[in-house]
Amino acid sequence: MLDRTNKKEEVLQGVAASPGVAHGEVFVIHQRDLEIPVLELEPAYIPREIERFERTLFETRKEILRVRNEVAERLGEGEAKIFDAHLLVLEDTALIDETIRQIEETHHNVEHCYAQVAQHYIEVFAALDDEYIKERMTDIRDVTRRVLQNLLGQTAQNLYELTSERIVASEDVSPSDAAQLEGSKVIGVVTDAGSRTSHAVIMARSLKIPAVVGLHDVTKRLNSGDYVLVDGYDGTVIINPGEETLFRYGKLKQERQNIQKAFEKSSLLPATTLDGKTLKVYGNIGGPEECPGVLGNGGAGVGLYRTESLFISRDKFPTEEEQFQVYRRAVEAMQPNPMIIRTLDLGGDKMVSSYQYAQEEENPFMGFRAIRFCLEHTDVFKDQLRAILRASAFGEVQIMYPMISSVEELLRANQVLEEAREELRNRHAAFDENIKVGSMIEIPGAALVADLLAEHCDFFSIGTNDLIQYLLAVDRVNDRIAHLYQPNHPAVVRTLERIMDVAREHKVPVGVCGEMAADPIYVPLLYGLGAESISVTPASLPEIKYLLRRMKLKEAQALAKKVARLSDPESIYMTLSAFYAKVMGDLFKEESES
Amino acid sequence: MLDRTNKKEEVLQGVAASPGVAHGEVFVIHQRDLEIPVLELEPAYIPREIERFERTLFETRKEILRVRNEVAERLGEGEAKIFDAHLLVLEDTALIDETIRQIEETHHNVEHCYAQVAQHYIEVFAALDDEYIKERMTDIRDVTRRVLQNLLGQTAQNLYELTSERIVASEDVSPSDAAQLEGSKVIGVVTDAGSRTSHAVIMARSLKIPAVVGLHDVTKRLNSGDYVLVDGYDGTVIINPGEETLFRYGKLKQERQNIQKAFEKSSLLPATTLDGKTLKVYGNIGGPEECPGVLGNGGAGVGLYRTESLFISRDKFPTEEEQFQVYRRAVEAMQPNPMIIRTLDLGGDKMVSSYQYAQEEENPFMGFRAIRFCLEHTDVFKDQLRAILRASAFGEVQIMYPMISSVEELLRANQVLEEAREELRNRHAAFDENIKVGSMIEIPGAALVADLLAEHCDFFSIGTNDLIQYLLAVDRVNDRIAHLYQPNHPAVVRTLERIMDVAREHKVPVGVCGEMAADPIYVPLLYGLGAESISVTPASLPEIKYLLRRMKLKEAQALAKKVARLSDPESIYMTLSAFYAKVMGDLFKEESES
Repeated sequence: MLDRTNKKEEVLQGVAASPGVAHGEVFVIHQRDLEIPVLELEPAYIPREIERFERTLFETRKEILRVRNEVAERLGEGEAKIFDAHLLVLEDTALIDETIRQIEETHHNVEHCYAQVAQHYIEVFAALDDEYIKERMTDIRDVTRRVLQNLLGQTAQNLYELTSERIVASEDVSPSDAAQLEGSKVIGVVTDAGSRTSHAVIMARSLKIPAVVGLHDVTKRLNSGDYVLVDGYDGTVIINPGEETLFRYGKLKQERQNIQKAFEKSSLLPATTLDGKTLKVYGNIGGPEECPGVLGNGGAGVGLYRTESLFISRDKFPTEEEQFQVYRRAVEAMQPNPMIIRTLDLGGDKMVSSYQYAQEEENPFMGFRAIRFCLEHTDVFKDQLRAILRASAFGEVQIMYPMISSVEELLRANQVLEEAREELRNRHAAFDENIKVGSMIEIPGAALVADLLAEHCDFFSIGTNDLIQYLLAVDRVNDRIAHLYQPNHPAVVRTLERIMDVAREHKVPVGVCGEMAADPIYVPLLYGLGAESISVTPASLPEIKYLLRRMKLKEAQALAKKVARLSDPESIYMTLSAFYAKVMGDLFKEESES
Repeated sequence: MLDRTNKKEEVLQGVAASPGVAHGEVFVIHQRDLEIPVLELEPAYIPREIERFERTLFETRKEILRVRNEVAERLGEGEAKIFDAHLLVLEDTALIDETIRQIEETHHNVEHCYAQVAQHYIEVFAALDDEYIKERMTDIRDVTRRVLQNLLGQTAQNLYELTSERIVASEDVSPSDAAQLEGSKVIGVVTDAGSRTSHAVIMARSLKIPAVVGLHDVTKRLNSGDYVLVDGYDGTVIINPGEETLFRYGKLKQERQNIQKAFEKSSLLPATTLDGKTLKVYGNIGGPEECPGVLGNGGAGVGLYRTESLFISRDKFPTEEEQFQVYRRAVEAMQPNPMIIRTLDLGGDKMVSSYQYAQEEENPFMGFRAIRFCLEHTDVFKDQLRAILRASAFGEVQIMYPMISSVEELLRANQVLEEAREELRNRHAAFDENIKVGSMIEIPGAALVADLLAEHCDFFSIGTNDLIQYLLAVDRVNDRIAHLYQPNHPAVVRTLERIMDVAREHKVPVGVCGEMAADPIYVPLLYGLGAESISVTPASLPEIKYLLRRMKLKEAQALAKKVARLSDPESIYMTLSAFYAKVMGDLFKEESES
């Protein structure tokens, strides 16, 4: 009886990361913390310790190269690039030199020193809410772990060792683990942490292995051998699914596959509503290599090009020329579609040999970063602006400033831009003299003075992630209050409405980026309130285009008007969900009819 | 010539902390970081190490008691209380036990272990923006330093050693240093860090020693022997003052003394404007012992009773009865004036043996605290609510919830309050059945749904410190962006106007607390926009009452209307300053005429 009771169904909600349904036994990988001994060394042993460090780095390098080549052979050069990034981390002279300095100074053993230096590196990055940086942190963690394991003479757990099909549950999936997914017996992946855009998840998607991430404590709730069902569409994990559930999912799996096909069919058709309005749906990118993903999923341009990747894990800031080459490649790849490039959105001391200069901030989300940093380091800022301007000679480019909180900042940014233009004119370098310049609206103060900002820029782009965080004083990365991060809070809806109303009055087009724009539940609200465009991760484009092609803009406008008058989060969400279900309901019918 | 150029006047702006003007040679105290050795001990030495720790604690206890008694004799029991707080820190069993545990476990020396444990304690507290906690941190730092110095066999720098009059420049003034101020040759104090309410500053004020704090890097800019002038009225420090400056200040000093006297004369008169409106001006307190300060400075009640002090540095949460006794004492001390008690504004893991359970948050200002904590720990919350309710039987008490961000939170808080009432009714305990309940408006989201909140509470209290932080995404504790923290930002003025308009419409009175309310430049704006009351540190009351008695509410309303239409921070500030100068200008005339 007791045993039976324990086996009752339990549903965990996470984030859908790779579509599909799988069920089977679980294999739990606990990434146990490595036990790093602290030893005090006799001075005579120091040189030998440093030698041991260098030998291990050399061995680790060979190991990474071996995995890299295996992956390149199986999955192509594209997927193997992860390991090139790993080699860069491994060979980072700042990391190595600092470790050696610490060994010499503290006389502690290399494991302890290396772990400390790497930990500091990671902590500095951890404070930043940026997908790209989170990925770089994963790289650093992965490489550090590999080096420490080699130093300690341990070997890593190996997914190849699975002898029968298993759903893997893990705190996180390291890129090294991810590289072993193909050809393994892994049929599903569930993780505590993890973002939808990690290498591991991208790999799972390409291998069509269903994955759910962001489950917080799934590795604590599961034991190896438990039976679970993974719904990679909805982001749910069902522990001990009953027969009825398994049957339902058997049908659902088929339906979902049909739906996914329908989405994919929509992706290359125009985003035209039933009442004949063609809406702009853009993709977000982090570099030129992501442009094919945007085009392949039917994006009409790039609404957010995050340029941070050029500035991280380097010895010095990238030159104008380096940046220009990269931006130009991206612009050319997207022709003839427009591309909005966001200027640097980080604190400078968090890039470029970061851990040496870093000054920890107690509240980095409200700290010295983005335009605040750029306006105090106009040399760095101007280099970037010149590079972007020059890229504008090769296609339609727009510039967007992040973290604007006042008219004064916008004016100062525009002045630096004018200086950059003047310098290019003097050099007779080609650029688009009519380039459009926009301000992100992601700080409540900016939303409140949108009327004043409108006079000094050509467009707005609402960054919903930050805007919601500040509006509600909720760090969305903080698990303990994540439930208070509500895009459906009436204060959020009212703020969006206000920005769009002001923008309309001042004839300034508004785009929306951030996760709210990628959630199809909220898409009709955003267009209905007056968004001219949204920009989302490329994978979200097909469903959004499908949705837009099946609704009227008029209906969305009526919906927005109604929702803006609602006063509680629950009814806002229910109203939006009902609209979405109504529009998508047709799909289910159509699909089952056809 | 070069020497002469180096001696040119330089003006540093800090925060005025103790009024008065002083000039003379500087004595710079560098609180050098103690060098804590890390030693690995043979197991056999562990018991001896623990014995050494306990002996040092005993010696330090005697030392603190000695200083305590000296101070009590010279300045009275009130000032000596600092050292009672120090004894509590010194004898904190959690701190001691954890240190011993670390010695036993890591085999490291006691200095290293004690420093680490204390540092952890401090880091957890450092993340909180609360005056009271910042003071407790100073206590912990001071005690830790004393213990470590004793362990290391060092002696502290001693202000008694000064043989001629000096202005002391220091990173911070520890309470131990402060206790030596009296009878020393110190004629002025300037510090890098420090708040206006530290023990040291209170001591300086009581000894009439001018002080300027918050100068960031004054200890780096000055060398012992430099000549400076300290203006404790304006918060300026002038390095190498010229003859003209010294002359000007000689006159100013006299004028300022007259002005201060005029302020003090106003403090016990009613806060009635020239057009006959009597405005409510309240004081902020942190405990019953601060009530005489409010009454002595003419406060008409307490607009913000911060209750955090009861919850910090303890082994467990205070009981209902303990809290009731304290609140009752405060209420009785303020009779017949009203008192607004704010419920707990902290995260629970940051109190009560904090360092054992603490979970570091990356952005504590947007984290798990205040009402968020209370609604998840309703037992702790209800104990406090019952204690407050019972105190309401002894005078007019109102309850105020901090960090409300939505109607749902307010409703849930009210529900817990209703449960607390029901429990008291069942016990037949006396309390005010008509007690007023208010919501703080300190999160932008709350300001945006003030109309919805108004339906479920009796009053609003705007917390300007947090509200401005979130509106502008600026951590005001972060030096590098402090200039972006602008009470005169149009978004701030518009938000205040909006809250007050909505409140007026819904007939909900609005109070304002936070530093903006204590700055006389902003006081006419706040009343002009519609504030029913403001609540400030007691020391700010006399000037504010003087100001109110010399202006018309009508004028303030016209001023507010004008300022709300201004679009840049500069003109907002200039307009408010001009109004202030016009009102206060009369004072200067009157004084010189009399």
